[in-house]
Amino acid sequence: MAQVNFKEGRELDAIVLGRAGVDLYAREANTDIADISGFDKYVGGSAANIAVAINRLGGSVGFIGAVADDAFGRYVQGYMEQQGINLDGMMVDNSGSRTSVAFTEMKASDCDVLIYRNNASDLTLKTEQIKPTYLQKSKTLIVTGTALSASPSREATLLAMQHARRVGTVVVLDVDYRPKTWRTDVDASIYYGIAANLSDIVIGNREEFDMMETVIAPGNQNDDETADRFLKGQTKIVIIKAGELGSRVYCKDGHQFEQGIYKVKAKKPFGSGDSFAGALIWTLTHGGSLEQAVSNGSAAAAINVSGTSCTEAMPSREELETFITKFEQAER
Amino acid sequence: MAQVNFKEGRELDAIVLGRAGVDLYAREANTDIADISGFDKYVGGSAANIAVAINRLGGSVGFIGAVADDAFGRYVQGYMEQQGINLDGMMVDNSGSRTSVAFTEMKASDCDVLIYRNNASDLTLKTEQIKPTYLQKSKTLIVTGTALSASPSREATLLAMQHARRVGTVVVLDVDYRPKTWRTDVDASIYYGIAANLSDIVIGNREEFDMMETVIAPGNQNDDETADRFLKGQTKIVIIKAGELGSRVYCKDGHQFEQGIYKVKAKKPFGSGDSFAGALIWTLTHGGSLEQAVSNGSAAAAINVSGTSCTEAMPSREELETFITKFEQAER
Amino acid sequence: MAQVNFKEGRELDAIVLGRAGVDLYAREANTDIADISGFDKYVGGSAANIAVAINRLGGSVGFIGAVADDAFGRYVQGYMEQQGINLDGMMVDNSGSRTSVAFTEMKASDCDVLIYRNNASDLTLKTEQIKPTYLQKSKTLIVTGTALSASPSREATLLAMQHARRVGTVVVLDVDYRPKTWRTDVDASIYYGIAANLSDIVIGNREEFDMMETVIAPGNQNDDETADRFLKGQTKIVIIKAGELGSRVYCKDGHQFEQGIYKVKAKKPFGSGDSFAGALIWTLTHGGSLEQAVSNGSAAAAINVSGTSCTEAMPSREELETFITKFEQAER
Amino acid sequence: MAQVNFKEGRELDAIVLGRAGVDLYAREANTDIADISGFDKYVGGSAANIAVAINRLGGSVGFIGAVADDAFGRYVQGYMEQQGINLDGMMVDNSGSRTSVAFTEMKASDCDVLIYRNNASDLTLKTEQIKPTYLQKSKTLIVTGTALSASPSREATLLAMQHARRVGTVVVLDVDYRPKTWRTDVDASIYYGIAANLSDIVIGNREEFDMMETVIAPGNQNDDETADRFLKGQTKIVIIKAGELGSRVYCKDGHQFEQGIYKVKAKKPFGSGDSFAGALIWTLTHGGSLEQAVSNGSAAAAINVSGTSCTEAMPSREELETFITKFEQAER
Repeated sequence: MAQVNFKEGRELDAIVLGRAGVDLYAREANTDIADISGFDKYVGGSAANIAVAINRLGGSVGFIGAVADDAFGRYVQGYMEQQGINLDGMMVDNSGSRTSVAFTEMKASDCDVLIYRNNASDLTLKTEQIKPTYLQKSKTLIVTGTALSASPSREATLLAMQHARRVGTVVVLDVDYRPKTWRTDVDASIYYGIAANLSDIVIGNREEFDMMETVIAPGNQNDDETADRFLKGQTKIVIIKAGELGSRVYCKDGHQFEQGIYKVKAKKPFGSGDSFAGALIWTLTHGGSLEQAVSNGSAAAAINVSGTSCTEAMPSREELETFITKFEQAER
Repeated sequence: MAQVNFKEGRELDAIVLGRAGVDLYAREANTDIADISGFDKYVGGSAANIAVAINRLGGSVGFIGAVADDAFGRYVQGYMEQQGINLDGMMVDNSGSRTSVAFTEMKASDCDVLIYRNNASDLTLKTEQIKPTYLQKSKTLIVTGTALSASPSREATLLAMQHARRVGTVVVLDVDYRPKTWRTDVDASIYYGIAANLSDIVIGNREEFDMMETVIAPGNQNDDETADRFLKGQTKIVIIKAGELGSRVYCKDGHQFEQGIYKVKAKKPFGSGDSFAGALIWTLTHGGSLEQAVSNGSAAAAINVSGTSCTEAMPSREELETFITKFEQAER
Repeated sequence: MAQVNFKEGRELDAIVLGRAGVDLYAREANTDIADISGFDKYVGGSAANIAVAINRLGGSVGFIGAVADDAFGRYVQGYMEQQGINLDGMMVDNSGSRTSVAFTEMKASDCDVLIYRNNASDLTLKTEQIKPTYLQKSKTLIVTGTALSASPSREATLLAMQHARRVGTVVVLDVDYRPKTWRTDVDASIYYGIAANLSDIVIGNREEFDMMETVIAPGNQNDDETADRFLKGQTKIVIIKAGELGSRVYCKDGHQFEQGIYKVKAKKPFGSGDSFAGALIWTLTHGGSLEQAVSNGSAAAAINVSGTSCTEAMPSREELETFITKFEQAER
Repeated sequence: MAQVNFKEGRELDAIVLGRAGVDLYAREANTDIADISGFDKYVGGSAANIAVAINRLGGSVGFIGAVADDAFGRYVQGYMEQQGINLDGMMVDNSGSRTSVAFTEMKASDCDVLIYRNNASDLTLKTEQIKPTYLQKSKTLIVTGTALSASPSREATLLAMQHARRVGTVVVLDVDYRPKTWRTDVDASIYYGIAANLSDIVIGNREEFDMMETVIAPGNQNDDETADRFLKGQTKIVIIKAGELGSRVYCKDGHQFEQGIYKVKAKKPFGSGDSFAGALIWTLTHGGSLEQAVSNGSAAAAINVSGTSCTEAMPSREELETFITKFEQAER
């Protein structure tokens, strides 16, 4: 790809850094948590989802994160290993933290999600855990923003991004902003600003860019101006997602385009961002153009939200291609 | 009953103080958490279990505790209200705590239980929440020991016990000791000692009495000596449970007896203590003898462990009576 | 003494449990902290003050507490050892706590006191530190209430009181209530109630007894009723101090009397309670009557507040006797 | 000055951000803390020292920081106001924090310093407190590194540096590294790296640059290489201090020189860095050359360490000039 340069001959297409946890999906659809009979169990967490997405498409992927030394920690690790994800960067914490768990209703909208993250294991990731030799094995480092929300994970994340830059690994930031995990938007914007400037590619939606501009351009809603600002530093590609309206893509070299969405009936409102990022990076690291990458990202997102979980609904390469073909035929 | 005196004309048979939370039971039996497909959802927590047990048997029961201001908090409250449990003493905490959740395998032994209790809502109970007028409405106050494990719940619990004594409400302590929630056994023994001395009835197993004697009689394994020590203060009845071997019951007036268990094939190793306490107090507050109460407790425990959840497997009066009749016929 | 029984042949007259720290007194009298040139340095803290008071009068005294592993910790220990105070129960904490420091103006009233107690060393005292063999060496254990204000010092204090009772050591509670160190008065009253019931002698002022009665008799201002309530349990002597009005003393055996104060011009408003307690216990453990003890306590308090520090202004036996003689002559 | 550009017409020469607290100096020199009779009281703290240094030389200076709502907080504010320091950026915290206090022996070396910083007020500074309009009033923003050691002060500091850059205020980082306040050197280096890159001028000693290079060039002791690295980003001037050996100064434009020290007999080992920074920035903002600035800094440092406090020993312009003249005559 012209805009960013992936090092040849690296063992891994991507290392994803951030949260791997347990997703518990309401067994009955369109039913309140109080009224369901139980939950189906899956591995989840933004970073784990992205790793699985790349892996499912045939990419080789590694992981940096932390889980608890308990049954859920072992489950998450076992599942990821079984998929073939490299876990050399996975830390097991036994200080009393707990693997993150998300309980979710299965509704297309107004979906109640209950998150158990008091003393979450993923945020115990430490700088000691970050090895330049590991980062050097991969073409990209994909960071999900939740990893920035608390120390010591925050420092570990920034260190990983710095190391990645030094060893020629392309850095991708998936903003993934959860307001409740931060003291104020302003505090968040400081670390996101630092992280964005350490990234070659920044992916977020309009609300997330609003947060990142809360100090420097409060109230701005203009994507062009936003992209301009973020491309002034080290960032080479800015992708601003706008839900139903698709995505706007801006490159440092002036190249710019829009991509619509693959419209489907959603079963759940989450997982789309993670599958988008996963398919995007898989495409780019396999020689695809930025346009193909964003298109594949959108298709993968559509496939994912029509499935019943995040990790398990990630498409294979065949499923992705079939989906796009069918969709295009139907559109004619 | 001769040994303790229940006030006549009280609206409630019991108020239970402690933990109400969510139990998530492995859908597949005899399978590791990592390998199950999901969880069945129930209301649980020692105190909630006891409240449901009494309610199911036909008793009138109230509750003092705290849940989070979220879907699980609403679920727990909704379920308890639906059963007919009075929730005037239930606090809703919105400081960031989370309703306690227990994930459990379904195995008769070596059963992995994963507890999410970092910043647990039940331990946010405060002295402000404890009303003598509420305690005065009940014949008994049943305290589960977990409520003593941290401030401010610890102070609220001790205050409730003091108020209860002052308004003539019989106080019952179900020891329910979880070592991991305490700094040391010695620290635990201090508060359990204070609580036991505020209680008319103390129920625990041998290991729990060992902890309570860790300072005053380290190493003692003699039930008679233990009972002697605990009956010297204000306590009138001491019940020492010994699993398969049944229970030993000691009264301040010298009365003393043993009660065997109702042997059944267990599906899970928990819930027995809570059903025992519930049936015991229900029997006593409905005019039964201590012998009947302990027998009913043992039967209820047997019924509960052969069921697939704690709250839902609590027997009704009819089920309890049928079970005992059948068991006795089979024994002949 | 008739009311309490001191064991003969014990090495120490008293062990004092609680806070030993540094007192920094404004160098210039009647001047705001902002305007003084500096501070004079003394050892202080309620428990240390009481220990020094007994020691200065010729009593043999030990100490249970904790200081930091730093220059102030070493200073406090060095000073106390030099006085001849036994420090077998002194713990040195190196977890990052700091020895308590109090900065005070030198004014008879409206005296600003600035206390540095964030992560205070004395509150790191642990149950592991409490040895029955040490407590058995002493006729009395004197507990200052601050030690109850936080865990793990709270548990260590309650354990020491329990051990003391078991080995025949007379237990004295000097209430020493600091509202800011407690969540609410009600929470405080719970632990003070437990501690009072473990004490043979309880010493406090009217406001402190108000706090202790906040649940059981809110609004009560009647000393007779208060004493009645506290003498119902294990407590044998209740001393209610009323500043300028002197003290009221109540015994379980019905004996009761009042003691006026020795009126002097005060240089500072603190230290009086600690010298009172010290002289009282010294007198009692040396065969004095309760009347003599309270009189000596009042005289020691008068001497102390007319001095320029707490520890250094504690009177020797000769100073105490001379003061009383002179005072009585002047009164005639 | 050629290397950095100070905006004309600004009301203040500098705003200093960081710690203002109380310094308590041992009254007797060459004596251990345990053995001194008391302490002399001064305002201190790196940032306050620098502000006073500039003010004493005749500069106009403002302050951003936080003190407690108590006698020491009022003392610090009163003193600074009296000097004529603008306190529009000073926050008063009443959440239970305490103004930082440092107790120090008066020895030229092996000087024990005891710091009370558990829940220190200065570290409660928040982003809400940082106003671009205030920063715009000043030619420079001087940040002392301690302000980066914990949240929320860390975020407030980074935000102030970002705002300053945007409004054309020259940013100066005085590294001021205290290892004990950080989890690891690596964690510290991440934030110092970010801060250095936001700074026009970075001042530190060799050990401090070692910490900042702990990830990027571990083990490097070569000042030239260090300066090279730090001048690659936005930084325009790097000053590496080497104690007795003087300072090495490196500019982005290639200009480079060394400056020896003004050798004097020190009474205390602290205060030199703060007076150096203060005199340096005062000289630069008053039209002096970088060489004059570093020379004035060294002279001010020499004057300060031969005095008996930090703030009070800061020289006036006359004292500084007289000192340099006399020193040069003596050297001939």
